[in-house]
Amino acid sequence: MISPAARIALDLTADLPVPDLEDFYRDLHRHPELSMREHRTAAALADRLRTSGFDTVTGVGGTGVVGVLRNGPGPTVLLRADMDALPVQEETGLPYASRAPGVMHACGHDLHVTWLAGAARALAAGRDTWSGTLLVLGQPAEETGEGASGMVADGLYERFPRPDVLLAQHAAPGPAGLYAHSPGLIMSASTDVDIVVHGRGGHGSRPESTVDPVVTAAYLVTRLQTVVSREIAARESAVLSVGRIEAGTRHNIIPAEARIALNIRTQSDEVRERMIAAIRRIAAGECLAAGCPREPDVVVGNSFPVTVNDPETDRRVAAVHGEVFGAGTILDPGPAMASEDFPRLAEGKIPYSYWFVTSTPAEVWDAAPGDDLMEKFAAVPSNHSPQFAPDLATLAPGVRTLVSGALAYLVTPEEPS
Amino acid sequence: MISPAARIALDLTADLPVPDLEDFYRDLHRHPELSMREHRTAAALADRLRTSGFDTVTGVGGTGVVGVLRNGPGPTVLLRADMDALPVQEETGLPYASRAPGVMHACGHDLHVTWLAGAARALAAGRDTWSGTLLVLGQPAEETGEGASGMVADGLYERFPRPDVLLAQHAAPGPAGLYAHSPGLIMSASTDVDIVVHGRGGHGSRPESTVDPVVTAAYLVTRLQTVVSREIAARESAVLSVGRIEAGTRHNIIPAEARIALNIRTQSDEVRERMIAAIRRIAAGECLAAGCPREPDVVVGNSFPVTVNDPETDRRVAAVHGEVFGAGTILDPGPAMASEDFPRLAEGKIPYSYWFVTSTPAEVWDAAPGDDLMEKFAAVPSNHSPQFAPDLATLAPGVRTLVSGALAYLVTPEEPS
Amino acid sequence: MISPAARIALDLTADLPVPDLEDFYRDLHRHPELSMREHRTAAALADRLRTSGFDTVTGVGGTGVVGVLRNGPGPTVLLRADMDALPVQEETGLPYASRAPGVMHACGHDLHVTWLAGAARALAAGRDTWSGTLLVLGQPAEETGEGASGMVADGLYERFPRPDVLLAQHAAPGPAGLYAHSPGLIMSASTDVDIVVHGRGGHGSRPESTVDPVVTAAYLVTRLQTVVSREIAARESAVLSVGRIEAGTRHNIIPAEARIALNIRTQSDEVRERMIAAIRRIAAGECLAAGCPREPDVVVGNSFPVTVNDPETDRRVAAVHGEVFGAGTILDPGPAMASEDFPRLAEGKIPYSYWFVTSTPAEVWDAAPGDDLMEKFAAVPSNHSPQFAPDLATLAPGVRTLVSGALAYLVTPEEPS
Amino acid sequence: MISPAARIALDLTADLPVPDLEDFYRDLHRHPELSMREHRTAAALADRLRTSGFDTVTGVGGTGVVGVLRNGPGPTVLLRADMDALPVQEETGLPYASRAPGVMHACGHDLHVTWLAGAARALAAGRDTWSGTLLVLGQPAEETGEGASGMVADGLYERFPRPDVLLAQHAAPGPAGLYAHSPGLIMSASTDVDIVVHGRGGHGSRPESTVDPVVTAAYLVTRLQTVVSREIAARESAVLSVGRIEAGTRHNIIPAEARIALNIRTQSDEVRERMIAAIRRIAAGECLAAGCPREPDVVVGNSFPVTVNDPETDRRVAAVHGEVFGAGTILDPGPAMASEDFPRLAEGKIPYSYWFVTSTPAEVWDAAPGDDLMEKFAAVPSNHSPQFAPDLATLAPGVRTLVSGALAYLVTPEEPS
Repeated sequence: MISPAARIALDLTADLPVPDLEDFYRDLHRHPELSMREHRTAAALADRLRTSGFDTVTGVGGTGVVGVLRNGPGPTVLLRADMDALPVQEETGLPYASRAPGVMHACGHDLHVTWLAGAARALAAGRDTWSGTLLVLGQPAEETGEGASGMVADGLYERFPRPDVLLAQHAAPGPAGLYAHSPGLIMSASTDVDIVVHGRGGHGSRPESTVDPVVTAAYLVTRLQTVVSREIAARESAVLSVGRIEAGTRHNIIPAEARIALNIRTQSDEVRERMIAAIRRIAAGECLAAGCPREPDVVVGNSFPVTVNDPETDRRVAAVHGEVFGAGTILDPGPAMASEDFPRLAEGKIPYSYWFVTSTPAEVWDAAPGDDLMEKFAAVPSNHSPQFAPDLATLAPGVRTLVSGALAYLVTPEEPS
Repeated sequence: MISPAARIALDLTADLPVPDLEDFYRDLHRHPELSMREHRTAAALADRLRTSGFDTVTGVGGTGVVGVLRNGPGPTVLLRADMDALPVQEETGLPYASRAPGVMHACGHDLHVTWLAGAARALAAGRDTWSGTLLVLGQPAEETGEGASGMVADGLYERFPRPDVLLAQHAAPGPAGLYAHSPGLIMSASTDVDIVVHGRGGHGSRPESTVDPVVTAAYLVTRLQTVVSREIAARESAVLSVGRIEAGTRHNIIPAEARIALNIRTQSDEVRERMIAAIRRIAAGECLAAGCPREPDVVVGNSFPVTVNDPETDRRVAAVHGEVFGAGTILDPGPAMASEDFPRLAEGKIPYSYWFVTSTPAEVWDAAPGDDLMEKFAAVPSNHSPQFAPDLATLAPGVRTLVSGALAYLVTPEEPS
Repeated sequence: MISPAARIALDLTADLPVPDLEDFYRDLHRHPELSMREHRTAAALADRLRTSGFDTVTGVGGTGVVGVLRNGPGPTVLLRADMDALPVQEETGLPYASRAPGVMHACGHDLHVTWLAGAARALAAGRDTWSGTLLVLGQPAEETGEGASGMVADGLYERFPRPDVLLAQHAAPGPAGLYAHSPGLIMSASTDVDIVVHGRGGHGSRPESTVDPVVTAAYLVTRLQTVVSREIAARESAVLSVGRIEAGTRHNIIPAEARIALNIRTQSDEVRERMIAAIRRIAAGECLAAGCPREPDVVVGNSFPVTVNDPETDRRVAAVHGEVFGAGTILDPGPAMASEDFPRLAEGKIPYSYWFVTSTPAEVWDAAPGDDLMEKFAAVPSNHSPQFAPDLATLAPGVRTLVSGALAYLVTPEEPS
Repeated sequence: MISPAARIALDLTADLPVPDLEDFYRDLHRHPELSMREHRTAAALADRLRTSGFDTVTGVGGTGVVGVLRNGPGPTVLLRADMDALPVQEETGLPYASRAPGVMHACGHDLHVTWLAGAARALAAGRDTWSGTLLVLGQPAEETGEGASGMVADGLYERFPRPDVLLAQHAAPGPAGLYAHSPGLIMSASTDVDIVVHGRGGHGSRPESTVDPVVTAAYLVTRLQTVVSREIAARESAVLSVGRIEAGTRHNIIPAEARIALNIRTQSDEVRERMIAAIRRIAAGECLAAGCPREPDVVVGNSFPVTVNDPETDRRVAAVHGEVFGAGTILDPGPAMASEDFPRLAEGKIPYSYWFVTSTPAEVWDAAPGDDLMEKFAAVPSNHSPQFAPDLATLAPGVRTLVSGALAYLVTPEEPS
């Protein structure tokens, strides 16, 4: 006995224009744009929304796109896709690989935009089957954490209808065909930290006249490994990754400073505070050991909040996904270490559901029964990898997840007869 | 009883146009040019040589300048100054600080050019006091090691007279007023090595799916400290400095590779070979420990030979310097760890003398009797430091060293009566 | 409405001889004995069991003690306490501190033995209130992992009645008065690994003629931090601790080898295998980097299994504890990283419940509302610390937990009337 | 034209009882004794001295032996051998390997004692060829630096004739048959430093509740590599070796502290002070980084002075050695990093000569022309190595060096005719 929302979702997405979606996706993938520079992407999405019948506004919160479809009384549902790419040099060798040197859709946001465009069109085409208001967002700058708050600050909820529920989804490693829901904490908080080590530069042949910041930064990075390995209880989930280290210009010049950019992932404020304190203490200790002329700069930068699904909302969306794809396709893998700025669209008040769509091609995944799945996850190219290449077979399913999720709110449940 | 060469040198340099030399120096300092781009510097030097009466050719071996003054029978003496600046952001705060962002005369080559121009003018003006041929070189690209070999390859000794002796000098830390000669090894060999660590990139929140090249490079840099501390006998003089480390672009992306650029200084081929072998072994071991998908690239790059003064030549030049400046100003500090491409002008055959002119301003040096001089040397801004600022009071003395050194060959010793 | 088991447990433990239990505890604490040498402890426990009316056998599986009380038809319940102390030098300053140099009851097994003796006496004294068989174990050598398997191998279940359920408890940090139950995984697996680094010894003044195993071992320990920080997903709970490092005899002799003893904690076989493989790889890489004359020895030693409570059994015991102490005293903190050999008594078949009794004195704990409890846990002396000093106020409660847990099986539930 | 001293020395040592010396040596080698416990060795030496005709006293400065032979007017010459062995487990596999577990003559002091006994006998037997006083010393505890000062403090120069010159020699790696003299600095100063890292102990499964001193000590040892690699100019000769690291007892207990014992070698007070300051600073920094509950203890312990030969004395001894063995056998390798307490016998006043006798067996050395001699030195077993095994063919030559060195002072030079 299938719910009306699921039944209608299957109807509306029965004949998706997959070749067209593939073309759209490949075009986006070829032309990745960095955060807050998503001009071409935004224009392409806005064009499709307008064509589908949405009132569409661009330039919201920078390069953000908002489409509105008012379709009678009922709740307002927001569907959101992030649009920005990453400063990664693509190494997939795909025929539709990035043409922008050093920039790549390595996180699947091109897939998100394609899914959103497909869902918007399907829902608009089938507007006689549901009632309410659709708010569709092409959000800029998720990677830098500026996008969601930028759109809110630009009057998103004053200029457009305030939603009753927010829905969003993300491509994830795993064999294509699964939908991961967690009715609570699903993603971690993220905090960037920048460290500058101040040494004293000089000639490479006379290190005794310098305080070497390269060597100091190297010891510091090795020492930072102990934050997770020694200072956080094993039962806590925490990560510290140094994403960038940079010092010096020439083989034989000892530079005056070194720069380290790191990111931590946490699931509680207590752990976050302990880690930041440990980073400060270790940086101070290493610079003391080195004899640095002054203390290091340790600056806490961008941060993302935890993503905590509203349990009732997430269970309602997971339920319709189970109807559409089969109960065996829904899993709860528990909280991930990834982070999102999506929760900032909720302003701490609007309930939301955020889920993952696995998208590793079957031939890449290629697990036999009994294989160590953890090793599989570690071995396939993950988000942010230069080899990240999601399966195009997930194009239609990713449209269906959005359509059915929206309809779970926009279709009136049938009365039990 | 002073020698004729010394006496004439004192005469010819009694009335040096110091304000004009200062202006020339300050202008060069304001306009530093990187290796092989010394166009403005070369033109300024060539202009002065021509005005002084030299046959002057530019563009030898790239941006090199050669001036020739044929003045009767006798030996041919080559005087050489290097002209290039460094990719260092000046921090001296001097009124004549570099106007080129990120480029600075941090090694004193501007002083070398000024000294050479002053000496060329003084020797030309006093040409009736000596006999022979003067060959004056403005050499490009000493810092990158390309300049001397480039001028030789461009036919230096076919197109111009072949010298009987080569003379060159370098500004050095130490209280202005000393002249350091070593009748043998005076500078070390230098070898650049580049290492690329190949990891596997991915999202910063999922290090388990990556092989982190940032962390691997950091451990590698700490491990490289043992090359000097454990593998080279204390009696050998050897240095290994990592001048540059570079990996990643963003806080939360683990990159796919890391790059390390290092330089070693040695005084024998055996030590050099042992150090290179140790670097290769350590890089391989650290990448094995990390589980890197492939072996690191370890590439031996630019190298400079040892600088070994011809003992007889150096003692002859040191002797005339002692006469000109006083015996107490000449010292033999033994071999330095610095390196030069100057020996390549000798082609393994022409005898040469290379010496240092100390140039730290007295008020910066400021040592009291009993002070630890080694600490002094370590504390004052050395060559390649963003604070390097030689004393302008060394302008005239640095002209006198070249003039008297040249005259030690160009003036006939008086017959004992 | 309290259950009969809880009501009888409260009756039987209403007048516990607390001063006598304190004397017994203090005597055990003063005389700690290392694993498999628990002769005095075993004799003291056996004496108390006999006096209480148990058929008592000593020397089971080495120094193990077994007491049996057959009391009519009904299930057989096993209560177990471990008896061994640790090679730790006590630093508590307590009046009853250890008199054995370098040996200490730093893990609370003296408390476990006292609780067991108290419970055995109370249950024996009240034998008219219950029916069934009590099997009471003083187990040796829990710390070395030999004790449980040794007793089973010595015919525990052939020589004595086979139990239907196993019960055991452990002192834990936390404010005295809480009882931690987990209906499933409650403790982690533990695996010891020994590493020997083979260098080449020599005189400390000539490191270049050696391969320094001290330095190699040090880099290896720092590198091992990355096993947890980089190679295990944050959602997995895993620990790697190096408990011992040892190399050399004299300041100026570089020894020929270094020894590292480490322990890992894991909650799945996959993670365990990944960690052991990483340890092997890192040891090999570091020894390659050092140029060791041969590969390091990496030997996997003692291991403990995971402790997984039978859910039904644990919920039943937790329920009666909630009745005895109040529902608010029962908490489920999830799996701990500690390990036990207790599960080996189950032979993979007998259901068991294992729980923690918090025992930090209130004045040591001293948390105000709003305090970071995690920091509290980190700050108070934990098991294995030289300052570990459990609260004697937990003596009576720890007897009640055992008595009520046993009675949950030995007392017939009242028929609902 | 050979000198009388050389001629007489060759005469007196023409028929050395080599098999007897070999037996004596092998017996000493089999029975090594640690510092200040050289009872058997001292008795054996004293016995031989007495038999040779020396007035012999034992127990000077602990286990020291003094033999005096007054032989008419003339200077007093002191010949010294050190007697103690090392806490090293022998691995030579020699038939006469050490029978004392963990103790070995790994530094050749057994050879020194044999040489001294042979020279004393030869000089006593030929006493009609020379005139003056011989003072022969078997010194204890050179390795711990207590022996020489202990003998002086025990009234050596009050109870026995005060010498005019001191002579001593040491076995060294290198092809047997060379005699290394330096007329000035020949050996370095040595300073022991002990560091205790104070952490906070706890259970290995809960590192977050500890401050791990094992990990802290490991990072500290890696950081100490930078003292030599970054802080001391390459032209200075300096060594820092950690000879011992020790922490913890069990795999799964994080201990409360870690101990590091290191030794530095220097050739100037300035470098020594800089290194000690750097060690203190680095230890403080690493313990700050770790969050240690208190600062580390850094204690400067035993030290040895530099060994500086009196130039005139050393040249005189080297000259007679050249006559005895051939000029080509004398070399000046410059200062070694090894250290001695022998200079303390000079009390800063008595001139002395100290030289090395190479003693690597030819078949072990086995260098072909063109081989890298530095690698050879690094490859053969050096002093303090468990494989150290000097060539017995050096027994007679080492007697001749002492005899001829003494006769250089005790034989009147022939008048030039």
